[in-house]
Amino acid sequence: MNTALQLMMDKLNHEVENLDVGEKPVELYDPIYYILKLGGKRLRPLLSLVSYSLFREDWERILKPALAVEVFHNFTLMHDDIMDRAPLRRGKSTVHEKWNDNIAILSGDVMFVKTYDLLLNIEAEKLPLALSKFNQCATEVCEGQQLDMNFEDRSEVSEAEYLHMIRLKTAVLLGFSLELGALLAGADKESCQALYDFGVNIGVGFQLKDDLLDVYADQNKFGKQLGGDIIANKKTFLLIEALEKAEGEQKEALDYWLSQRDFDNTEKVKAVTTIYDKLGVKETTESKMNTFFELGFECLDQLKVPREKVAVLKSFAQDLINREK
Amino acid sequence: MNTALQLMMDKLNHEVENLDVGEKPVELYDPIYYILKLGGKRLRPLLSLVSYSLFREDWERILKPALAVEVFHNFTLMHDDIMDRAPLRRGKSTVHEKWNDNIAILSGDVMFVKTYDLLLNIEAEKLPLALSKFNQCATEVCEGQQLDMNFEDRSEVSEAEYLHMIRLKTAVLLGFSLELGALLAGADKESCQALYDFGVNIGVGFQLKDDLLDVYADQNKFGKQLGGDIIANKKTFLLIEALEKAEGEQKEALDYWLSQRDFDNTEKVKAVTTIYDKLGVKETTESKMNTFFELGFECLDQLKVPREKVAVLKSFAQDLINREK
Repeated sequence: MNTALQLMMDKLNHEVENLDVGEKPVELYDPIYYILKLGGKRLRPLLSLVSYSLFREDWERILKPALAVEVFHNFTLMHDDIMDRAPLRRGKSTVHEKWNDNIAILSGDVMFVKTYDLLLNIEAEKLPLALSKFNQCATEVCEGQQLDMNFEDRSEVSEAEYLHMIRLKTAVLLGFSLELGALLAGADKESCQALYDFGVNIGVGFQLKDDLLDVYADQNKFGKQLGGDIIANKKTFLLIEALEKAEGEQKEALDYWLSQRDFDNTEKVKAVTTIYDKLGVKETTESKMNTFFELGFECLDQLKVPREKVAVLKSFAQDLINREK
Repeated sequence: MNTALQLMMDKLNHEVENLDVGEKPVELYDPIYYILKLGGKRLRPLLSLVSYSLFREDWERILKPALAVEVFHNFTLMHDDIMDRAPLRRGKSTVHEKWNDNIAILSGDVMFVKTYDLLLNIEAEKLPLALSKFNQCATEVCEGQQLDMNFEDRSEVSEAEYLHMIRLKTAVLLGFSLELGALLAGADKESCQALYDFGVNIGVGFQLKDDLLDVYADQNKFGKQLGGDIIANKKTFLLIEALEKAEGEQKEALDYWLSQRDFDNTEKVKAVTTIYDKLGVKETTESKMNTFFELGFECLDQLKVPREKVAVLKSFAQDLINREK
């Protein structure tokens, strides 16, 4: 990470450390500080700052609205973890596990209010547009989570449906983060749109990368157990592709592993990975991922910004693309 | 209800009927239409319109921001019902019962976004203040709900703690509804504050009235079974007063009924009501309630508005005070 990015990251972390959303009742506020301090890459607010600094130098002005995106993201994690019955988040207990469901619901609700409080640091003339874009994004994120839950109960999900879902659930927030930075910097409409489109395409690519890493990461670098998605029958891009492509013996083997309730984790992961390998699912997914990354980078050509500035954003995105965990 | 109020009510209901928050996925949006169409008195948006019309005639301008308050209120009901495991709302299945908890969480989250979407209909120059006041109110409503849940697990709650809790949980939203109307009409700061204070005091009074009606309503007019709070050991103002006042035999009897797990509902309601009667809890509560109503009405004296206009608001509030269900 270069010096400018590191400085942004430091300032963001400082902002998180010093965030004061309230104190009492403690059951309402402690979970907010807890989830925000679990860490994370602060990717979204960092994207807002990088985007802003394409157009203006004084990015410290927008630390609070940038933080809004991080608080919103963590609010969605708190509520999603309840819905997914997830026991862990970044290796620590989730809020509903450490406290309880009711506290996770209500504490999340307050976090959502605090998102808007942080957005109210936006200057008045830019506020209506920024909020309207944010509301659109927040609505889509909820739609994405609902679609994700719906897909769990369905036997078949098409590639197009999956891509639509991850666009809503994860990609649009990256798009909004970048757009927000540009909008607050007073960038022209086309640049705002180009940065949004860049973020959405890169975001879809990231999710496909996540799907790939779960199966094909280097275990030494990955940090968590490989194959979690396979064990849980999660409908990732890889599984959807495999279900579409598999025939005969492979179809039978795949259906067998998907229907087993009692199995050895290592055995299932190995068997399903072998099927993926035979079907060339890794290559199809990589190719689709790269298409989205390329689409994303093409959007940047439309920016009315000096090349060397765009290079910072490109290299930041490239680092994220190259990650191995 | 007078003609002006009836017209406002009709327009509000029309606005609810025609509200378009989204369509797909249906699991996300159907519950929003469902809960909004369960009915209700539309009290909060009506207060916004009445408050606005103290200062200006063209109240139809603010139907959408007024509706925001109703949508927010119903969002809190949707989430509170999950937390309280309530099976029924206005005699119909609650959202988490009719669908499930996850849908009630996520659908509620989207409703909250839609609240802000409706508030975005406020003209730009008034938006920051209106949103900042709304955020403050929304935060307090969540704090009130958390305190209410905390009180359930405590053996002792003081009168002051209870009054603080109901102020947050229910009264501040009435205050905000009135303040919003005044603010949007461009009223002076003192009038905005006076209407807010009026709403909060009346709101606390309403909750005490609710507590009273549960025990002392006329069964023929009340609509639901009397004594629900007694059966559930709900820490109402009456119970808190009774616990503070009871001694000797009455204290023993009260403790007995509070600790019983198996009991005949009618018998418990009758027994606890008898204790309340002996302790004069009804009179204490009525007196406290009237103090809040009086405090509320006194706030109206500070309004810089013709007397005959204030009379409409007073008579509206008086009707609500006199309700018997």
